[in-house]
Amino acid sequence: MVILGIDPGYGTIGYGVVRYDGRKFTPIQYGAITTQIGAPMHLRLCELYDDLCTLIDTFHPEAAAVEELFFNQNITTGIQVAQARGVILLALAQKGLHPVSYTPSQVKQSVVGYGKADKHQMMEMTRIMLGLAKVPRPDDAADALAVAICHGHASRSALYTQK
Amino acid sequence: MVILGIDPGYGTIGYGVVRYDGRKFTPIQYGAITTQIGAPMHLRLCELYDDLCTLIDTFHPEAAAVEELFFNQNITTGIQVAQARGVILLALAQKGLHPVSYTPSQVKQSVVGYGKADKHQMMEMTRIMLGLAKVPRPDDAADALAVAICHGHASRSALYTQK
Repeated sequence: MVILGIDPGYGTIGYGVVRYDGRKFTPIQYGAITTQIGAPMHLRLCELYDDLCTLIDTFHPEAAAVEELFFNQNITTGIQVAQARGVILLALAQKGLHPVSYTPSQVKQSVVGYGKADKHQMMEMTRIMLGLAKVPRPDDAADALAVAICHGHASRSALYTQK
Repeated sequence: MVILGIDPGYGTIGYGVVRYDGRKFTPIQYGAITTQIGAPMHLRLCELYDDLCTLIDTFHPEAAAVEELFFNQNITTGIQVAQARGVILLALAQKGLHPVSYTPSQVKQSVVGYGKADKHQMMEMTRIMLGLAKVPRPDDAADALAVAICHGHASRSALYTQK
């Protein structure tokens, strides 16, 4: 199963495409979509939409997972990230995917085994699970890969419980 | 100038299409787009996107205005409304419009002349300015019409200052 994980944002949107065979993860591609700083928000959302559609058309993921938003800081930034997250969900749905949402602590629990793991532990476990020599950069891409791993684990559990 | 005003939401999205000749407003159409209660959010966003695109293709607005979000209550609902607002901005931009945002108090100031006007005053002034026999229903449609009026006034001011 090819899984696309996404770390939402409006300026930098992390993505990670991984293959999961129910046992191990193999990275296919990862990185970040960026939108033009200072451009009007509606044009940045168009950029994000177009780039995400291209990404889906290129890698044909069979499943998608998007991190939930957690507002603990700037509410204005939070609204903007949520607007971008809406566009992400739309693009995925229009491409026939059914995006699943995971909270940051669900992702940490799944990848590190501890819902309050710190960023360094998350990055390092993501690196190890994907067999990478270095921690993926930028951080947004590493976060997106972790979300994809979380979805792989959750799908496996779902398959088991269906049996 | 035909102006499309929008009151963002994910379950009920108010819209109002008005013609403005620089002096008076004429209502063309107003109402609400609704999305299926209980459906997954990504599917509701698709419904909203499709219906809004149809609306734009039907009435060919030359300008669009969308109310800014103001979070003072439920943060979870707020995130969902912001996600829908992102999809609204995207659809407008893809149709060649440049949506302008107005805060609730800017709309009140523009329509009633007082930024802290209450809902009843807003509805009644919107009704009078559009020459309607009754206050527009649902409330979301009335709010959207008020946003369109606000944009009409702002455009006229902008034209004057450009001279």
